[in-house]
Amino acid sequence: MKQSIKVSVDAVVFGYDQEQEISILLIKRKFEPFQKFWALPGGLVKDDEALEDAVRRELKEEAGIDVNYLEQLYSFGKPDRDPRNRVVSVAYFGLVRPADYQLSAQTDAEDVAWFSIKKLPRLAFDHKAILEMAIKRLRGKLAYEPIGFELLDKKFPFSDLEKLYQILLDRELDRRNFKKKIMSYGFLEELNEIVQKKSGRPARLFQFNKKKYFELKEKGYNFDIFF
Amino acid sequence: MKQSIKVSVDAVVFGYDQEQEISILLIKRKFEPFQKFWALPGGLVKDDEALEDAVRRELKEEAGIDVNYLEQLYSFGKPDRDPRNRVVSVAYFGLVRPADYQLSAQTDAEDVAWFSIKKLPRLAFDHKAILEMAIKRLRGKLAYEPIGFELLDKKFPFSDLEKLYQILLDRELDRRNFKKKIMSYGFLEELNEIVQKKSGRPARLFQFNKKKYFELKEKGYNFDIFF
Repeated sequence: MKQSIKVSVDAVVFGYDQEQEISILLIKRKFEPFQKFWALPGGLVKDDEALEDAVRRELKEEAGIDVNYLEQLYSFGKPDRDPRNRVVSVAYFGLVRPADYQLSAQTDAEDVAWFSIKKLPRLAFDHKAILEMAIKRLRGKLAYEPIGFELLDKKFPFSDLEKLYQILLDRELDRRNFKKKIMSYGFLEELNEIVQKKSGRPARLFQFNKKKYFELKEKGYNFDIFF
Repeated sequence: MKQSIKVSVDAVVFGYDQEQEISILLIKRKFEPFQKFWALPGGLVKDDEALEDAVRRELKEEAGIDVNYLEQLYSFGKPDRDPRNRVVSVAYFGLVRPADYQLSAQTDAEDVAWFSIKKLPRLAFDHKAILEMAIKRLRGKLAYEPIGFELLDKKFPFSDLEKLYQILLDRELDRRNFKKKIMSYGFLEELNEIVQKKSGRPARLFQFNKKKYFELKEKGYNFDIFF
């Protein structure tokens, strides 16, 4: 069968920063279609390239960054999603600390920036739908595996973990219940160290038990903090 | 950029039957490569065809069946997964009652059959990996949304729902805890009707509250019966 469908990849890179809402990495398109529109970084897959290698290459080429952990989200394949020709796009997502990255727009991108997911520009193609699914998946993930290892300092007050979950979920938590639940899994260790926070009382520091954390992440759990 | 990657779809259709282990629908390949091997139903997507329409067409063509509900699983894209040329396959999965279907091998398939997932033949391509991911996803799904509506009779004794979960999870359940949890969500109604089972005491009948069931399915919950 003759087939003229092309395969691309797109990256939804979320940024977490204690002081702000979740942000998302976008590039400004240099060329038509959707010239000057903001879009997810991405592009066509090379014939001999694994899908994940393609998305890493595109992130490097268009935004100048290397993202540690990316996970496949979904494949978007509506016949009319690209005005040029049929393109099936395999979307990936990841979650990083923007402060760890120096952005640099290159190749097909004339600009690159972080945008709050609450103040988004109009996006090219079906990228709004891709982003919406990624947000839903990210929030769903919180329910079945631990998150935070790469996003918090090595040692942190418990309130930093609370803040992470509140920002990612975009709502208040039942704090006592949350702490009880989290501690019951054993992937978090209370240290015999105190930090003086900018405001409020001195706080005890915590750290992730790396081994238990990745064990739980691998096998999945059930977090039950959401209703 | 010139690209010569092709796009296919593959279907992992699980069968649930009270008397047996989970089964999986396979077709026997009529042509090379992997001629005479068993494989997942699937094939190339047509240029103007949505991905899900393609997988439905392939199930109809190769196995003679219409599957009500299919969900996208993952896209498999290793450069060497097909010896002919680069093919990225978007896999879908579903769960049905084999008794509801009359199988009929057609086009590229010279045979079609249900196999217990515990007694599988050697599969073509990377279909074993696709199947393994689908099993993992199916079991994960049990943790965050209700399952069973299409698989049980309209009215059923509670033990039928227990059996469903035990078979899908492939392990015993803490039965009292399971019942307490399930009933707490309100999507299951206890009827004022009794059935005489083949063995054991007469049992009360239950039915799904359709509205609540699909509400919970839509918004997702957290099932917490797994540890």
